[in-house]
Amino acid sequence: MKSEIEVFAPATVANVAAGFDVLGFALHRPGDTVLVEEGGLGGVEIVEITGDDGELPRAVADNTAGIAAQALLDHLGDRRGVRMHIHKGIPVGSGIGSSACSAVAGAVAVNELLGRPLQRPDLLPFALKGEAAASAGAIHADNVGPSLLGGMVLVRSNAELDTVNLPVPDQLFAAVVLPRLKILTSMAREALRSQVPLADAVVQWGNLGGLVAGLARSDYGLIGRSLKDVVAEPYRAPLIPGFAAVRDAALEAGALGCSISGAGPAVFALCRGDESAFRVAIAMQKAFDAEGLPSERFVSSINPLGAQRIK
Amino acid sequence: MKSEIEVFAPATVANVAAGFDVLGFALHRPGDTVLVEEGGLGGVEIVEITGDDGELPRAVADNTAGIAAQALLDHLGDRRGVRMHIHKGIPVGSGIGSSACSAVAGAVAVNELLGRPLQRPDLLPFALKGEAAASAGAIHADNVGPSLLGGMVLVRSNAELDTVNLPVPDQLFAAVVLPRLKILTSMAREALRSQVPLADAVVQWGNLGGLVAGLARSDYGLIGRSLKDVVAEPYRAPLIPGFAAVRDAALEAGALGCSISGAGPAVFALCRGDESAFRVAIAMQKAFDAEGLPSERFVSSINPLGAQRIK
Repeated sequence: MKSEIEVFAPATVANVAAGFDVLGFALHRPGDTVLVEEGGLGGVEIVEITGDDGELPRAVADNTAGIAAQALLDHLGDRRGVRMHIHKGIPVGSGIGSSACSAVAGAVAVNELLGRPLQRPDLLPFALKGEAAASAGAIHADNVGPSLLGGMVLVRSNAELDTVNLPVPDQLFAAVVLPRLKILTSMAREALRSQVPLADAVVQWGNLGGLVAGLARSDYGLIGRSLKDVVAEPYRAPLIPGFAAVRDAALEAGALGCSISGAGPAVFALCRGDESAFRVAIAMQKAFDAEGLPSERFVSSINPLGAQRIK
Repeated sequence: MKSEIEVFAPATVANVAAGFDVLGFALHRPGDTVLVEEGGLGGVEIVEITGDDGELPRAVADNTAGIAAQALLDHLGDRRGVRMHIHKGIPVGSGIGSSACSAVAGAVAVNELLGRPLQRPDLLPFALKGEAAASAGAIHADNVGPSLLGGMVLVRSNAELDTVNLPVPDQLFAAVVLPRLKILTSMAREALRSQVPLADAVVQWGNLGGLVAGLARSDYGLIGRSLKDVVAEPYRAPLIPGFAAVRDAALEAGALGCSISGAGPAVFALCRGDESAFRVAIAMQKAFDAEGLPSERFVSSINPLGAQRIK
């Protein structure tokens, strides 16, 4: 009897430079875990949440993992009781897809508990519904997509939920640094212009095209030249003390490119090789240190698997 | 003695749907030819232009081919005399890169005449300078790029003139229909909004990313889903009588996607296979017929070579 299922869902870097709202990738760690077991009255019950410093709502209808799991049960017309334990490994509001991660883990865990009635990509709308509870405004799948599916995910259309797993060069590594600072997604979104000058938009999609082409041909130079964001980064950078110094440090240490992860304050760099990524991560952390901002750093290849059952 | 050099430069489809100002491809025909020979006083002299119904300026400083050729001579500090004969195979103002084509042919012809001092990609700025004479506002290399270099060319950055030749699936064919109607690039540009809603811009770069990914993996379905333009097409379509009917006819006849070529009025469709492209071209032409607009049609695979010396 499948009495207990535990699922790990990885953190993600979304808004990958010119890929604002359409491009994200999965890390190997950190991530959230969700454990589910049958029991209790009908529907999802959140038994405990750890690792969140008491910040997250326990009510299923307000919790990203709870909403995603319950939405899946409802869709399947399954009325069984599911007891859920959530362990947050990702700080809330850090810019590496915390809410998406829990939502993905919740949906995948319940799908496993039910004997996997849905294929992995079909879980996307349920995980997105969960993430929506914590998001401001329109829903974008560039966190949920890679956490659920793994890899570097282009969301060709958020409206149609059409995702494309892009090829990833062997030696592509990410350095991610999380300063101890919280940015609400709503605040980060308010910093943006609602209208973009056409000329800037053209620059942005030229770079996105270059990035997708660079990934396809393992052209690290092209990837580096394309890792630019003229639409979101200039407006969100002021929310992150020392961002310019951190980015400069990353580039000086050999990063291909560097930008804000998700809505920030996390900053990511893409690098060629793990050694380079370690050097870059350390340089970025030092730059945050110089701002008096303590931070955590992670180095990871692109996680090709996404959420995984671990028990 | 290299007394005469003749170069053919092919027409191009630019603004490939979501690739507004950054993506274009070369056709096999039609195209312009430029013949050059040494002679005369120093600098370029335009001896004759045919096929233009007398529309194009004969003064070197006002003529796209003349400007490009002279700019190259000036760059090389070469003071010889060059007599130039231009044959326009592309109607002016048709939306398939007429001015770019002549400029490319002029630059390549003079480069050949001089014994090829520059590599092909290094001719880009000279050809662009020529095209600029006929263009409105900012210069974009998505016509000149493919006419000069061949293939499907992404202009990662117009400011840095960073171009990328994208892979092209074997069975990708273009159907292009030119209605007998003239649209000035300046008019087509004025139809655009100078500011794009962020949400539309995101849709656009999601589609551009999908298109580049689809080309890389020969995924015709993804190419088709990505061939959408929410930024320019809706605003330029009213300049082309019957555009909606032409696009619908293309899609009904099996096109992967259909949009405006360049600044219009030419309309292009991408198709899987030449048979499909012929059917689509005929259907598009019929739709223009129904509007009382006579048109020319062309079917072509993506021309991998670009401008070629033919004599």
